[in-house]
Amino acid sequence: MTLGSWLRKNVNLFSRVRLGTRFAATPLRSKMLELSGLSIIGFQRGERGNGPFHGINPSTGKALAPTYFAACADEVNRAAELASKAFDIYRRTPGKQKALFLRKIAERIEGLGVTLVTRAVQETALPAARISSETARTCNQLRLFAELVEEGSWVDARIDQADPTRQPLRKPDIRSMLRPLGPVAVFCASNFPLAFSVAGGDTASALAAGNPVVVKAHHAHPGTAELVGLALIDAVRDCDLPEGVFSLLFGPGSQVGTQLMDHPQIKAGGFTGSRSGGQALMKLAGARPEPIPFYAEMSSVNPVFVLPGALREREDEIATGLHASVTLGAGQFCTNPGLVFLPEDGSRDLIESLRQKMAATPAFTMLTGSISAAYRNAVSVFAHHAAIEELVWGETEPPGAQCNPAVFKTNARSFLAHPELATELFGPATLLVTYSDIAQLSGIARDLEGQLTATIHATETELHQISDLLTTLETKVGRIVLNGFPTGVEVCHSMVHGGPFPATSDGRSTSVGTRAALRFVRPVCYQDLPDSALPDELKDNNPLTIWRLVNGKFTMAAVSDKL
Amino acid sequence: MTLGSWLRKNVNLFSRVRLGTRFAATPLRSKMLELSGLSIIGFQRGERGNGPFHGINPSTGKALAPTYFAACADEVNRAAELASKAFDIYRRTPGKQKALFLRKIAERIEGLGVTLVTRAVQETALPAARISSETARTCNQLRLFAELVEEGSWVDARIDQADPTRQPLRKPDIRSMLRPLGPVAVFCASNFPLAFSVAGGDTASALAAGNPVVVKAHHAHPGTAELVGLALIDAVRDCDLPEGVFSLLFGPGSQVGTQLMDHPQIKAGGFTGSRSGGQALMKLAGARPEPIPFYAEMSSVNPVFVLPGALREREDEIATGLHASVTLGAGQFCTNPGLVFLPEDGSRDLIESLRQKMAATPAFTMLTGSISAAYRNAVSVFAHHAAIEELVWGETEPPGAQCNPAVFKTNARSFLAHPELATELFGPATLLVTYSDIAQLSGIARDLEGQLTATIHATETELHQISDLLTTLETKVGRIVLNGFPTGVEVCHSMVHGGPFPATSDGRSTSVGTRAALRFVRPVCYQDLPDSALPDELKDNNPLTIWRLVNGKFTMAAVSDKL
Repeated sequence: MTLGSWLRKNVNLFSRVRLGTRFAATPLRSKMLELSGLSIIGFQRGERGNGPFHGINPSTGKALAPTYFAACADEVNRAAELASKAFDIYRRTPGKQKALFLRKIAERIEGLGVTLVTRAVQETALPAARISSETARTCNQLRLFAELVEEGSWVDARIDQADPTRQPLRKPDIRSMLRPLGPVAVFCASNFPLAFSVAGGDTASALAAGNPVVVKAHHAHPGTAELVGLALIDAVRDCDLPEGVFSLLFGPGSQVGTQLMDHPQIKAGGFTGSRSGGQALMKLAGARPEPIPFYAEMSSVNPVFVLPGALREREDEIATGLHASVTLGAGQFCTNPGLVFLPEDGSRDLIESLRQKMAATPAFTMLTGSISAAYRNAVSVFAHHAAIEELVWGETEPPGAQCNPAVFKTNARSFLAHPELATELFGPATLLVTYSDIAQLSGIARDLEGQLTATIHATETELHQISDLLTTLETKVGRIVLNGFPTGVEVCHSMVHGGPFPATSDGRSTSVGTRAALRFVRPVCYQDLPDSALPDELKDNNPLTIWRLVNGKFTMAAVSDKL
Repeated sequence: MTLGSWLRKNVNLFSRVRLGTRFAATPLRSKMLELSGLSIIGFQRGERGNGPFHGINPSTGKALAPTYFAACADEVNRAAELASKAFDIYRRTPGKQKALFLRKIAERIEGLGVTLVTRAVQETALPAARISSETARTCNQLRLFAELVEEGSWVDARIDQADPTRQPLRKPDIRSMLRPLGPVAVFCASNFPLAFSVAGGDTASALAAGNPVVVKAHHAHPGTAELVGLALIDAVRDCDLPEGVFSLLFGPGSQVGTQLMDHPQIKAGGFTGSRSGGQALMKLAGARPEPIPFYAEMSSVNPVFVLPGALREREDEIATGLHASVTLGAGQFCTNPGLVFLPEDGSRDLIESLRQKMAATPAFTMLTGSISAAYRNAVSVFAHHAAIEELVWGETEPPGAQCNPAVFKTNARSFLAHPELATELFGPATLLVTYSDIAQLSGIARDLEGQLTATIHATETELHQISDLLTTLETKVGRIVLNGFPTGVEVCHSMVHGGPFPATSDGRSTSVGTRAALRFVRPVCYQDLPDSALPDELKDNNPLTIWRLVNGKFTMAAVSDKL
């Protein structure tokens, strides 16, 4: 019996039995789109009772129905145990079936239609068009991972054939490939209610790699999370995958997340959020009896270096682009350009143009009251900083969760003397830093902490004058952008959305693009196993027709008997 | 000017100037093979003075000349700073030049000839034949990494071409590849004075990946370390590479290692040794202001599962193989088979045969007095354990650093009731565990900690009866061996010498085989850079003729203008 037919037979059976008994009462099918406020633990719903909370409409400050309930300790434990059980089957699920599953999730999310957009807009104050495009991006991302695992070569299969004649010792047959780690805890981001949340990049990449996922919803958009969670669990059912491949836990404080990260059945974690939150979870991941990989994407000021020639050639374009990039999503982007280096000579018009655009920009409603409060505090510290000139920051404070855009200015000398000026302002704000000489730039770059991105605006001639800056940035960031803007992270095979600490907890990784799946695997090696006992990826005749490294050469060919 | 010609011009100049001035006094050329007892810091030697110590001949207990001196804080700092400076050049050194360097190191080590063998035998009590074969393995390993970086495809180059017509937003040109992390601290192992020491796997893989290396020598074989260090620094000179690409520090305590791991210019670490030592360094790596990747290979009992059918067919072969594997290198192998599961029925003859072989094996001289003492203590705990039967352990304790081989026996029930029986005995000892039913085995495997290897002796029919065991082991170990023995780690592309914690600090990695280079890199992404500013690996016309993932397809073809 092939694994495929085995899975179809047994997993079907498994689900049916369960469906027929304890889970029949709450068939999670998307025709039931009423929100319940309860966690999703395997195929069951959580209990009412623990830590009630609500989604809040940041535009009105009003609580949104229904009441949400935090998962209790027993539920967190059950989600992790179910995930561990599901792992036994899911990790052996062939790529083609995982691809069907990922595509089904996308289809189910698209099926949520206007219900999803309406709820997400209510919970985040982001415009409907942004929610729609983020949904499309999330679904495209799921489909890109589906393509990856359907094609299959991503597992880095390697074969070194035996040589029985080698002296003094026979050379054994060694084969290896990447295998999933086990259940992954995913922490949703506040600023991407879809693309970095329940079925976002971490979930898509962990599932693609063969790992069950236990998602901790973000308290700022529980309704959005529940809708996507229902779509996801429907896809699990549609694809006859085992209970526990996916669970969704609510919990507004740190308790649920802490318990999850400490759970022995959780084998990795993914997080997008604040530096303090990320570092707290990093500590937990490292302090466990069995430390686990933990991928946190935390903070970045995404420096932009504008060179004189580029400024002369494209002043308007740069001003317009900067304004759009700084204010995109109310500046609540991890790739928001928070530091812009401009030549002292010749940047007056650009600064004035940017000042006018930002001053004319109405206040933004931030994602949550606490993000708004944190932004106001941080901006106010900048506004009162002796080394900083305030160019834009609304004269009157807007009401509720609204915030004014802000632009500040300083010079390179002051910037270097005050490391606190490189602090991230999470919101629609940026700090302009004037420099007198392009030779200063590589020194400035050398002093920066790790970043997700760095952007350079330069003519081709200038680009070759600043090779020092370019090579310094290669050691500091995950992505170098030329003559563009850092916001807008293309979902593709070559994307790196990562970077050295503190941009992320692990600079060897990316959370966007297909390389993200490599975060949740490890190589496993088979010595002298017969073909029949090997995974399909490593069998002689290459039944999956994938690219493999055979005796050191990339090939799709079958392995022949002779070396 | 190409980078190659630039390097030749400037690095030559750089070395010459330095040679002519402060370094002229101690030209590190291998014609001067007298040992000095001093650290090698870039192109300079360390100072006499700090923490004097000696290599000890474990066979005699006598100190070996010369006196060695620990690196002082200033020297450790200098080595790290020089490495950081060298990184600016070395990380841009083309693969072909790195290959020349790695081959030159191998050649220089081979040039040490009998001097190296003699010293290593004196310091380790390992037989000359073992030292010679380990030297050959070390040099082959360097040459395998040379092939890897010369061919060049290992950098996982990816290109997604721009699409200016895409709506609503132009698709940018995105390219990425793996780039080195920065200076790597390498901690030498006591049990492999060559293959896991100064120019061993960690050093070879870190250098191949483009990282300078600061090696902390093992205090048990300082002379061997110095000889190899001299060979290595000669290779640096021969290849006109910058000062700081390699340094070698002596320091018998934990001070030098601690300072190294805490140094801000050190960006990763590699270690082979004890669990306590590895975990102490793991903590340091995680607690730095900038946490860094740290790869420790620590402890493993390498379970062997012998099934009844295989036992019937190959009893003698298994007994002989086990005896050889348990006693290889006095059992001081990280892949030593420390746990052997045997069927209760039918294993009497094998046990008796193994008992006789082990009882007839003379005492071994261990690598150091402290390893010998630790082995005696650990074996003595087993010998006095109520759940254990002692089959072999010499009646009289041999003198000095000598130790008797040992064989213990228990049954599966007792083994499961006493988790302490899965503790590694580092030396020529093993614990036989009898089981009554093969159905017990997957449960036993499930309870094991992470391991480097697991071995199964089974007929092909049995192999399909124990698919549960096999799939459980896939989640527990780095390498599964069928009908062989775990000692003997093939150096090849597909090898995985790693495994989940506590076998290693990071189960996503291997310390043997070409995948080891992937430990010391991270992906870096370039958005919309012109061809002239891109690394060669990512240029349109593929000047290095490497395999790349272009728009999602593996190809060696140049990138054409049209998508």
